[in-house]
Amino acid sequence: MDITFIGLGRMGLAMAENLLKAGHRVTVYNRSPKKAETLAAQGAVVAPTPAAAVDHAEIVVTMLADDKALDGICFGPEGIITRLPKGTLHVSCSTISVTMADRLSAAHADAGHDFVSAPVFGRPEAAAAGNLFIVAAGARAALEKAQTVFSAIGQKSFIVSEEPRAANLVKLSGNFLIASVIESLGEAMALVEKGGIDKKAYLEILTSTLFNAPVYKTYGGLIADQKFDPAGFAAPLGQKDVRLTLEAGELLGVPLPIASLLRDRFLRLIAQGGENLDWSAIGALPAKDAGLK
Amino acid sequence: MDITFIGLGRMGLAMAENLLKAGHRVTVYNRSPKKAETLAAQGAVVAPTPAAAVDHAEIVVTMLADDKALDGICFGPEGIITRLPKGTLHVSCSTISVTMADRLSAAHADAGHDFVSAPVFGRPEAAAAGNLFIVAAGARAALEKAQTVFSAIGQKSFIVSEEPRAANLVKLSGNFLIASVIESLGEAMALVEKGGIDKKAYLEILTSTLFNAPVYKTYGGLIADQKFDPAGFAAPLGQKDVRLTLEAGELLGVPLPIASLLRDRFLRLIAQGGENLDWSAIGALPAKDAGLK
Amino acid sequence: MDITFIGLGRMGLAMAENLLKAGHRVTVYNRSPKKAETLAAQGAVVAPTPAAAVDHAEIVVTMLADDKALDGICFGPEGIITRLPKGTLHVSCSTISVTMADRLSAAHADAGHDFVSAPVFGRPEAAAAGNLFIVAAGARAALEKAQTVFSAIGQKSFIVSEEPRAANLVKLSGNFLIASVIESLGEAMALVEKGGIDKKAYLEILTSTLFNAPVYKTYGGLIADQKFDPAGFAAPLGQKDVRLTLEAGELLGVPLPIASLLRDRFLRLIAQGGENLDWSAIGALPAKDAGLK
Amino acid sequence: MDITFIGLGRMGLAMAENLLKAGHRVTVYNRSPKKAETLAAQGAVVAPTPAAAVDHAEIVVTMLADDKALDGICFGPEGIITRLPKGTLHVSCSTISVTMADRLSAAHADAGHDFVSAPVFGRPEAAAAGNLFIVAAGARAALEKAQTVFSAIGQKSFIVSEEPRAANLVKLSGNFLIASVIESLGEAMALVEKGGIDKKAYLEILTSTLFNAPVYKTYGGLIADQKFDPAGFAAPLGQKDVRLTLEAGELLGVPLPIASLLRDRFLRLIAQGGENLDWSAIGALPAKDAGLK
Repeated sequence: MDITFIGLGRMGLAMAENLLKAGHRVTVYNRSPKKAETLAAQGAVVAPTPAAAVDHAEIVVTMLADDKALDGICFGPEGIITRLPKGTLHVSCSTISVTMADRLSAAHADAGHDFVSAPVFGRPEAAAAGNLFIVAAGARAALEKAQTVFSAIGQKSFIVSEEPRAANLVKLSGNFLIASVIESLGEAMALVEKGGIDKKAYLEILTSTLFNAPVYKTYGGLIADQKFDPAGFAAPLGQKDVRLTLEAGELLGVPLPIASLLRDRFLRLIAQGGENLDWSAIGALPAKDAGLK
Repeated sequence: MDITFIGLGRMGLAMAENLLKAGHRVTVYNRSPKKAETLAAQGAVVAPTPAAAVDHAEIVVTMLADDKALDGICFGPEGIITRLPKGTLHVSCSTISVTMADRLSAAHADAGHDFVSAPVFGRPEAAAAGNLFIVAAGARAALEKAQTVFSAIGQKSFIVSEEPRAANLVKLSGNFLIASVIESLGEAMALVEKGGIDKKAYLEILTSTLFNAPVYKTYGGLIADQKFDPAGFAAPLGQKDVRLTLEAGELLGVPLPIASLLRDRFLRLIAQGGENLDWSAIGALPAKDAGLK
Repeated sequence: MDITFIGLGRMGLAMAENLLKAGHRVTVYNRSPKKAETLAAQGAVVAPTPAAAVDHAEIVVTMLADDKALDGICFGPEGIITRLPKGTLHVSCSTISVTMADRLSAAHADAGHDFVSAPVFGRPEAAAAGNLFIVAAGARAALEKAQTVFSAIGQKSFIVSEEPRAANLVKLSGNFLIASVIESLGEAMALVEKGGIDKKAYLEILTSTLFNAPVYKTYGGLIADQKFDPAGFAAPLGQKDVRLTLEAGELLGVPLPIASLLRDRFLRLIAQGGENLDWSAIGALPAKDAGLK
Repeated sequence: MDITFIGLGRMGLAMAENLLKAGHRVTVYNRSPKKAETLAAQGAVVAPTPAAAVDHAEIVVTMLADDKALDGICFGPEGIITRLPKGTLHVSCSTISVTMADRLSAAHADAGHDFVSAPVFGRPEAAAAGNLFIVAAGARAALEKAQTVFSAIGQKSFIVSEEPRAANLVKLSGNFLIASVIESLGEAMALVEKGGIDKKAYLEILTSTLFNAPVYKTYGGLIADQKFDPAGFAAPLGQKDVRLTLEAGELLGVPLPIASLLRDRFLRLIAQGGENLDWSAIGALPAKDAGLK
């Protein structure tokens, strides 16, 4: 199939590569063209502008950093929404706001396109291995067509609603839950460390009993090792997702006290110089507040 | 071996039963003797007082509701500490404060007894199946002797320190982490529910991906079904454990903001009439605050 | 002087009236023209559109509900920024975001106007009595010209910076401090009430000793009497100001944990049906959480 | 009158001095006798033990650091409760727990003494000037007799209940409100400082308008000047009072989210080395979290 992929960050690059491997004709666009070179070597067509990238597309996949980046690609006179042929499907994999999902839904409906919101769970290694989890929402026919993309990039997809925004809400709430795990693990590990217990032995107990889940192993390990650099997912992205979760809470009228706490943690981490660290670095703040190290 | 078991609540009853099944000579004591009847039918000796229960014991296991109950059994002129033969081992499985663990350590050392702190993870069903996880701390020889008990009641034991209090700290922090999961799931589920997403489908996504752990399945299910009655672990016990966690944090100088939030949740739940509900009922407060139902 | 006043809510109406009383030629505009009638009777000219209202103005004063309302008046092809004669002074008294203040500063500078940000402290009764406190920021000459307005509407003005946004930051932080007083008083009064102490006697002690300030008297009285209807300042306005405070905190990199708590309080109050109540109604939530009444 | 004063810290010393100045026969006791010397020079009798100090007392006033110190003085075989003549009045001015007030009430009633709980508001300078505010509770006759003390040490006394514990609850809630002011001022001042506004000018605006109260002036000034050493009221005392407030909340079933936040602030301040600072030093933590200085 003719698939256009826009946004070649660490995640997007790996996803586009898996679309190539699956045998699709892939056209790519990235603001900084350097990132596209390795894909060109694998057979991708590199387009000079977003508009040029989508001329022949049956499906356009976007994987961008935030609302603003996606807005720049989609809207305005050079935006892809004015360029996409009728009937094209846009699969938005970025972690964006519920409000942005609503704007895209409306604009694509007006223009006669299909639209699926399909944010993904997984860090770059999972993207490289084609092991992402995909949470998708949209009209049934559009979702069926999107399966072509999903099967190439992920291990499993979940359909949550006909309303695209619902997928973004699930994704945001999922990242909120991960950040909650980071914070609560950070608190628990500060407590046991100050009580003279070895942090790794402690983590081993947790993850071989009730907390036997990838998220506890991954983030518990990062906190125990204080290994926040290089960032797999940088602190400002974590801050953004917590902000979007809080915005969704405000839109829907849902108080979220742990999300509020996380907001303050990320603001502090970044204000104190941690903007290049992994988002799990907020998990080291409880130990700092306990006067450790 | 001659084992005395004191405290026959839902957990203790199942644990004592597993000691009988393992072939030990078991003497039991419970404040309300009614609870001991089913054990008597299985061959246990029922003692009329704690002092009488421990006369011939090689090992005494206690599983009581809180510090106060354990204090009543152990200390004072009729307390078991004055009655235990030298060289006896006391295995304390109750979830008690770090301070209480220190008091017991000192008193048993003075009296020439061995002491192991060995709180357990698991709800009553796990206790019945002999599937508890045991976190143990104490002197090496005492821990070796305690294995007789551990192998009868649990699926796995973890040794964390030579200082008994460390096991209690791990247990408290573990319950704190579970309560954190309940609160964060409660917030996330209120958010997606108000966003029109089915709570059970949402939980299915979480628990088949990053949150594939027993604790998310168990408590997510209870919150999704609003099934808080009858209580597997009642709200006042949850409140107590959060209080003991905060006390440990104060003793050790560790701020614990999520534990502080949980404290206020439990106080509210109980003040508003929920004292007989399962502790996971705090997970319904975010939905209430969002004006749901 | 020729002064145009835009925005005739409870506050704006009183402020415009005081400008008339001070002898100025006042032109007014309000989206719903009904509100302007009583001013017409006192000699004000009622303009049919914002653009028509500002044709001859030496000073334009705006007092609108939020960023969006002010945006509608100022920007766009019919906005007053394209219509104001060069050299005109815009005095913005609305409680708006720091970001909006920055946008207005830039747009007026481009268009050759003077701009002063001058939010006010005081409830409608203070506005009627000409007793507002004004916090103002802008270029020196502009501030001098603005004194004409300040002396008519307020008892005192404070100059905080040459950068207009600074005045908005002070105003937002002030409302945040008031809301903090409401919340903390609410908690303290729930505690003493449940302890059997008369709330009014308690408030009398506070306000005749260390807390001898208008804000404790006013809001303490409202909470003690549970008198939240009619609203002097409605809950959604309080929510908005806390949101703008948090946004300013995010922009400047300042975690604000009490503001985060207040955010959740307002969301809850409104989600549970309190959107028409006075913002001090969040002060009744602690009593509710304590199971009172 | 024969008045015995026990506890000669910075506050107690000044209070005892004012009792001497009022013409009473004053006997004093302090654990470290050095503190009593200046009072001896003014005519006080210095007793070698608490028991010896109360032999002839008509009124005993205690002003001790905490529950534990008061427990040591009052209870046990050498405690004053077994030594006080029947009919003697004990006026407890210490800031103690509600639970301790209840224990004292019961013990004095059993022994045939009068008991008044009468904690005071004011820093050492106010104690020296006889300007304390006194919050008192107890039986009517006892309160009347206690006026002798109150008129010597304070500018005003408030009767809140016949139950002594009520006075302690008011005192604790008052200190909680002061700490809330410190925290909220700390947050607001971090915000405006990072926004380029002068902190002292900002404080001047606040305290000449809505926040025209001693508590804002005193603590705002300390925060603006970062003047936390020497301590007027040390951080561990602030921590203690917040803990007692939270304990009272737990006893009465009242969630107190701002008190929970304050708890974590004090724990952090002390864990990070601030145990000798004034309690207002928690007001500098928001600036630290914002990356200032």
